[in-house]
Amino acid sequence: MTQYTPGPSELYFTVQDHVKSAFRNRIPSLSHRSKGFESIFQQTTSGLRQLLGIPESHFVVFTGSATEVWERSIQNLVMEKSFHLVNGAFSSRYDEVARQLGKTVDQARLPPGEGFENVRVTPGSELIAVTHNETSTGVSLSLPFIHSLGEAHSDSLVIVDAVSSLPYPAFDYDKLDSVFFSVQKGFGLPAGLGVWIVNNRCLTKSREMLSKGVPIGTYHSLPSLHQYALKHQTPETPNVLGIYLLGEVVKDFLRRGIDTIRKETEYKAAILYQCLESHKALKPFVQNKSHRSKTVIVAETGARTAELAAYLSKKGHQAGEGYGEFKQQHLRFANFPAHSKEQFESLTDALMAFD
Amino acid sequence: MTQYTPGPSELYFTVQDHVKSAFRNRIPSLSHRSKGFESIFQQTTSGLRQLLGIPESHFVVFTGSATEVWERSIQNLVMEKSFHLVNGAFSSRYDEVARQLGKTVDQARLPPGEGFENVRVTPGSELIAVTHNETSTGVSLSLPFIHSLGEAHSDSLVIVDAVSSLPYPAFDYDKLDSVFFSVQKGFGLPAGLGVWIVNNRCLTKSREMLSKGVPIGTYHSLPSLHQYALKHQTPETPNVLGIYLLGEVVKDFLRRGIDTIRKETEYKAAILYQCLESHKALKPFVQNKSHRSKTVIVAETGARTAELAAYLSKKGHQAGEGYGEFKQQHLRFANFPAHSKEQFESLTDALMAFD
Repeated sequence: MTQYTPGPSELYFTVQDHVKSAFRNRIPSLSHRSKGFESIFQQTTSGLRQLLGIPESHFVVFTGSATEVWERSIQNLVMEKSFHLVNGAFSSRYDEVARQLGKTVDQARLPPGEGFENVRVTPGSELIAVTHNETSTGVSLSLPFIHSLGEAHSDSLVIVDAVSSLPYPAFDYDKLDSVFFSVQKGFGLPAGLGVWIVNNRCLTKSREMLSKGVPIGTYHSLPSLHQYALKHQTPETPNVLGIYLLGEVVKDFLRRGIDTIRKETEYKAAILYQCLESHKALKPFVQNKSHRSKTVIVAETGARTAELAAYLSKKGHQAGEGYGEFKQQHLRFANFPAHSKEQFESLTDALMAFD
Repeated sequence: MTQYTPGPSELYFTVQDHVKSAFRNRIPSLSHRSKGFESIFQQTTSGLRQLLGIPESHFVVFTGSATEVWERSIQNLVMEKSFHLVNGAFSSRYDEVARQLGKTVDQARLPPGEGFENVRVTPGSELIAVTHNETSTGVSLSLPFIHSLGEAHSDSLVIVDAVSSLPYPAFDYDKLDSVFFSVQKGFGLPAGLGVWIVNNRCLTKSREMLSKGVPIGTYHSLPSLHQYALKHQTPETPNVLGIYLLGEVVKDFLRRGIDTIRKETEYKAAILYQCLESHKALKPFVQNKSHRSKTVIVAETGARTAELAAYLSKKGHQAGEGYGEFKQQHLRFANFPAHSKEQFESLTDALMAFD
C-alpha cells in the first residue's frame, strides 16, 4: 500500500536502514553534549545548506514541530504587528497563533483553492507570514511572488511556511528572512522534528525585543537557539535520532541530486494533473494552473469521494482525505521524493480506469 | 560497553525490537489524526497511569522535552509569583526560566550535595517548584517531604521535576498537582519526548490566566493540550514513534512489575553506595544518607577522576562525567531500569579492584 496522505506520509525508502545503523552506532543513547552529537548536528545542517542552497547569512535550528515554529517565530519576530497571507486552514492557523500571542494582526485573505499574485501589505508590519503550499487545498504560490514580498518590503521580515513543499522549491534565501518545515512530509521521516532556517536580521530583531523586555520565550528563543547552534548543539535534549535520520536522508537526496528530485516531482505532478483534467468524473480542485501545487495535489471527487478512496485502496493506493470542510468532496495526493514515478504511473492508471 | 551517563543513558533492552515492530506496523508514517494514533495515545497514557498510580484527577500530555515543561508550566501556572527549591544546576535552571518569563521568583537555596528537609515558602507563591532528583549532584528529596509541600501549602500548586527519578518514586499524586519527566532517562528511550502529568487545579489556573488576558502560549497551553488529550490526540504532529515506544516500554515495565523494578533499583543503589563507602580512594558525594539518590549515584573521585573513568571504560563501564563545576572531581552513575543487577555487580567489582 502506497500512502499518499500529505504528512505524515510515505517514509523515504532508506529510513528503516538508517534506523538500523543508528542503533548499531548507539545514536539513540548519545549525549546531546558529546562530540558525537555535535558532529551529527553539523552534518545535518551542512547537508541541508548544500541541498537547499542556504547561504551563510542564514542558520539552521531545530524545534519539536513546525507548529512550534509558528509560535516561536511570532514570539521572536513580532513586537506588535504581523501580516498574514491567508488562503486555507494552515495559513489561517498561523494568523490565529499571532492573535493568541496578543499581536495586532492584519491579513490578506483569499477563498480556499485560490492563490496570491499580488498583495497590499499594511505599512508597519514587522513580519509578513506566507504559506508557500496550502496543504489543505493544494494551492502553491509562485516563487517570483514569494521573493517579491521580501524585495518590496525591506522594512519587514518575510517568513515562509514551506512545510509541505520542501525540498522541492528552489527558494532564493537572500530574498527571504526565514523558512521552516517539518520532516514528516517532503523528507519522508518519522514526525517529531521541525527545522527553522533564519537569518541574522531575525536574530537582531529578537535581541532587540529581548533588550526592550518583550518576552521572547526561554530555551527556544532565537538568541538561545543561535547560541547553541554555534556550538552545533541544542538548548534542550533534542530528538537526536530524528536529527540523525534527517542528516542521512539529506545525504541520500544529495546523491540522487536535487535537480533529479525536482524534475521527478514535476513529472509526477504533470501526469496526475493531466489525468484529473481529462477524467470524466474528477477534476483538479485548484482552477488556476499557475497556483496548482506540485507537492500536494487535490482532486475534486464530489459525491464519489468514499467510493473512489475505497477503490484506490483496493488497488494499493491510500489517498489522503480532503481537509476540514472538504472531507467528503476531495482526495489529496502527496507528491514527495518518497513517491516514485512508478507509483504515480500506477496511481494514474488506476484513476483512469475508474469511471 | 554499559552506559551509566545519567541521560541519555542505556536504552531499555526491548527498544530496538519495538522499533522493528513499529516499522512493520507503519507507525512512523501514521497520521496523528487517525484512530490508530488515538489508540496508541490511549494505550501509552493508560499504561503510565497503571505503572505510576496516576489517579483520575490527573491527566497526561506530551511535549518535546522536559525543558519545554519548565517553560510551559511557568507560563500556564504562574501569573506573578513562583517559589523554587534550588540545590543544583537543574533546579536552578527551572528557577531561571521563571525569571526569564518575567515572574517574581523567590527561592530556598542549599549548596550542591545537600537536600531539603523543611522549607519556608514565601506566602502568596502560586507555584512551588521542586526537583525530586538533582541529576547534577545525585541529591534526592524524600517523598514525605515532597508530599508535605502540597499538604502545608494548599493555596499553592506543587510541581515536581522527576526527570531523572521516575519510574522509581512512588509519588502520592493526590498530594501533588503536577509531575513531569523525559523519556531518555528512567524509561530507557531515545530522547525527544517530555511527559507532563497535571491535575484539574492546574487546568483551572491556566484557564483563569487565559480569561484575564495573561499570555499562556498557543498550541501547548494547558487548555489546548487538555482539549486534544480528551480525544487522545495532540495539538501538533507529535513524535508519534516516541509515544508508541514509551507505551511499549511501559507494558514491559508492567510485566516486570513496578515493585520488582523498585526493589532492584534499591539493591543496585545499595551495592554501589556500599562500595563507595568502603572504598579507599572514593566516596559518595552526598554526605547525608537520607538525601542520596537511588537513581543517580555520584562518586567523589577527586584527582583520580580521569584515571578512574579510563579504567572503567576498559572494563566495559562508561561512567557519566561530573556536572559543571564538578567535571574534574565526580563521576556519575545512572541506576535506571535499563541497568541490570549483573551490570551493577560487575561495576562494583571493577570499582573495588581499583586502588
